[in-house]
Amino acid sequence: MSAVDVPVALLGYGTVGSAVDRLLVENAEDIERATGHRLRVVRALVRDLAKEREHAPGAGVLTTEFAAIRDDPGVALVAEVMGGIEPTERYVLELLRAGKPVVSANKQLVARSGGELFSAASEAGVQLRFEASVCAAIPVIKVLRESLVVTNVHRVLGIVNGTTNYVLTEMEGGSTYEEALAEAQRLGFAEADPSEDVSGADAAAKMAILATVAFGTRVSFSDVEYEGIESITPLHVAAAREMDMAVRLVGAATLVDGKIDVRVHTALVDRHHPLAAVEGAFNAVMLQGDAIREITLEGPGAGGQETASAVVADMVSVIGTTGTGFLQNDAAWRRLDPLPKGELRSPFYVHLEVDDRPGVLAHVAERLAAHEVSIARLVQQQLEGAAALHIVTHEARSGSVTAALADIGHLPETWTTPSALTVISDRGVPGLGWT
Amino acid sequence: MSAVDVPVALLGYGTVGSAVDRLLVENAEDIERATGHRLRVVRALVRDLAKEREHAPGAGVLTTEFAAIRDDPGVALVAEVMGGIEPTERYVLELLRAGKPVVSANKQLVARSGGELFSAASEAGVQLRFEASVCAAIPVIKVLRESLVVTNVHRVLGIVNGTTNYVLTEMEGGSTYEEALAEAQRLGFAEADPSEDVSGADAAAKMAILATVAFGTRVSFSDVEYEGIESITPLHVAAAREMDMAVRLVGAATLVDGKIDVRVHTALVDRHHPLAAVEGAFNAVMLQGDAIREITLEGPGAGGQETASAVVADMVSVIGTTGTGFLQNDAAWRRLDPLPKGELRSPFYVHLEVDDRPGVLAHVAERLAAHEVSIARLVQQQLEGAAALHIVTHEARSGSVTAALADIGHLPETWTTPSALTVISDRGVPGLGWT
Repeated sequence: MSAVDVPVALLGYGTVGSAVDRLLVENAEDIERATGHRLRVVRALVRDLAKEREHAPGAGVLTTEFAAIRDDPGVALVAEVMGGIEPTERYVLELLRAGKPVVSANKQLVARSGGELFSAASEAGVQLRFEASVCAAIPVIKVLRESLVVTNVHRVLGIVNGTTNYVLTEMEGGSTYEEALAEAQRLGFAEADPSEDVSGADAAAKMAILATVAFGTRVSFSDVEYEGIESITPLHVAAAREMDMAVRLVGAATLVDGKIDVRVHTALVDRHHPLAAVEGAFNAVMLQGDAIREITLEGPGAGGQETASAVVADMVSVIGTTGTGFLQNDAAWRRLDPLPKGELRSPFYVHLEVDDRPGVLAHVAERLAAHEVSIARLVQQQLEGAAALHIVTHEARSGSVTAALADIGHLPETWTTPSALTVISDRGVPGLGWT
Repeated sequence: MSAVDVPVALLGYGTVGSAVDRLLVENAEDIERATGHRLRVVRALVRDLAKEREHAPGAGVLTTEFAAIRDDPGVALVAEVMGGIEPTERYVLELLRAGKPVVSANKQLVARSGGELFSAASEAGVQLRFEASVCAAIPVIKVLRESLVVTNVHRVLGIVNGTTNYVLTEMEGGSTYEEALAEAQRLGFAEADPSEDVSGADAAAKMAILATVAFGTRVSFSDVEYEGIESITPLHVAAAREMDMAVRLVGAATLVDGKIDVRVHTALVDRHHPLAAVEGAFNAVMLQGDAIREITLEGPGAGGQETASAVVADMVSVIGTTGTGFLQNDAAWRRLDPLPKGELRSPFYVHLEVDDRPGVLAHVAERLAAHEVSIARLVQQQLEGAAALHIVTHEARSGSVTAALADIGHLPETWTTPSALTVISDRGVPGLGWT
């Protein structure tokens, strides 16, 4: 087969954009072998033509004029690697409307404006791919859309933020939250302002995209309930270790009886669960479905070259499937309502401090039982004049646990406001391993 | 887009074949949504029409005549789920030559006859896909071929046999090899004659396919050096645990300076390595490449429904890419020579028993040093009148380790024939974590 020349353009020529250009040049033969096409960057939109660049593109490639890309009939495909919402969203919409397929690495854009973008792509009959928007080179979007077409995925569990996972892993090694975060910043795993990561907002955007693709319904960033790791202390980590679990920031998208729940929260993960083995700045996503049981994909969830690799894979897939109708652009083909608050079932870890005297445990157990929360495992720890109770429950409604904890908080023998964390147990079988 | 009806045929209608039929029926809407096509089983080749079947196909679907499938111009695609080499190979060749795309779940066929099959597919200009031939529903072939086109994968590490991994995990829990194997048989993880699995032959066939796709060169079953787990004792498992490692049957395909080495061997895996976390009958494959660092895929590596899910994914991908030239059939586009025996570098675990008296350790260390094998870590264990030495070396040529062990075996103070196992260390950085 003789190679077909495919001129492509980039929006942005920073770390990811220049890596895309370099990968296309260095691997031109591999791409031609796989697809019969040669992809060549002919235009790249930048803000400043004069800026010093480590990897310099060919003469005449850089431009500050978006219209030079949009209106060039020779440009067959555009990769958006500039980030941000404005003017990026407008550019992508205009490109799609001009009939150009787009590959995007922009999680905030896809998570917030997916509906409009995919509509524009469908109307124009061109593809919009977004593998690099979630977990960089880990090909979870392609696997969900092309390998798991018939598996009815009903749950997605993910460690989708490397910064927080690095911090939590370091805390297991004995660091405080502040020490671990400072070390992450020193190593470049965390930004100077880490709030997007540690608050869970970054993970929430990725979970919105994953839930959309997995369940075929529109999930926006604003639909995802999230919390961060700021309140995790060495005490949580120690308690988890004591019970053979690890503290992780987990994104969980669940489909229950046709309703969905998408959240990001700190959870205790059973040591034998694949997500507990994910260490440092790595990411992992577990997909659970009828026909596959579960598949977990793990790898580096960030990095310029890793992200560029996913962008190129999407470009290759666009080229390789143009004209076949494979795949439809928008993965959101149905409307699913959210699961009512408090209805999600899970085992929980409950921590409370109480008077250290006979009868107190009975009171606590009674209040839990009154809300149909049963105890799977209990560790009692002596403190000065008080006792700390570490309780793991069997699977229960989260609303029941919240209500039981409110009751327990009102008991005169309770010292602190009781708190609960979700427990993610072995291979999705809650309670397994507990006596 | 209006649905296009795609009549398909199956070779075989056993566990996998009937599951494929059922998945196509039950998920027809999902497939149509993703591809715009409806796949419908119109013929299935079986040996015995009268056999009782759990899932009965429509009237007139079952046939004992292969020609009824090959010569039916209405059949657009065939899934080979009958297994075996003969007559399967002949059937697949005839189908490809007749211009019908084929999807195969047959690892022995692809590993042994890949060259001929792929040539036939290329000549006829039709696709041959084989996702289900390796690790069932884990989409490692699609990821290698479509997501990692530009990443120069140079190493594939896999736990690709669930039976042996189940046995080794059980041995970590205290069982003997015999007890663990009997339990695996009771649970259906091992066959009555488990030799294909425990000898490493099953894993070797899968590694041949993975190496072919990863490195773009023809690797046949007969090119893979393999060993099994029959000689692993609780002592190995205990020694591994002592050094914070786990015993695993690991398939390793390595590209070194344009030469390849593909093997299956029992290895000690660092506890922090993703493969050490793979428990029970699960499989996992780690892909290491320039642009991605490493990506690990984990899931159930066997099962009728899991395998059927991969077969359907391949069928969907064939339909979705027909006519675009994406992908070329044969992943083997270059010829790479094998790495000369003994040249593969790795850290090793060495076990030997010696006289328990001063000076012996110095002799052993001297012999290792003479072959440029340096000690990273050593644990000495008192036995009756003797000492057991557990040594982990820094990265060394395997040939040097073999030669050093031969020397050490000739020392008068050595009691047993020394043995070595490969060590797979943290995140592919040999020696990391050792002092």
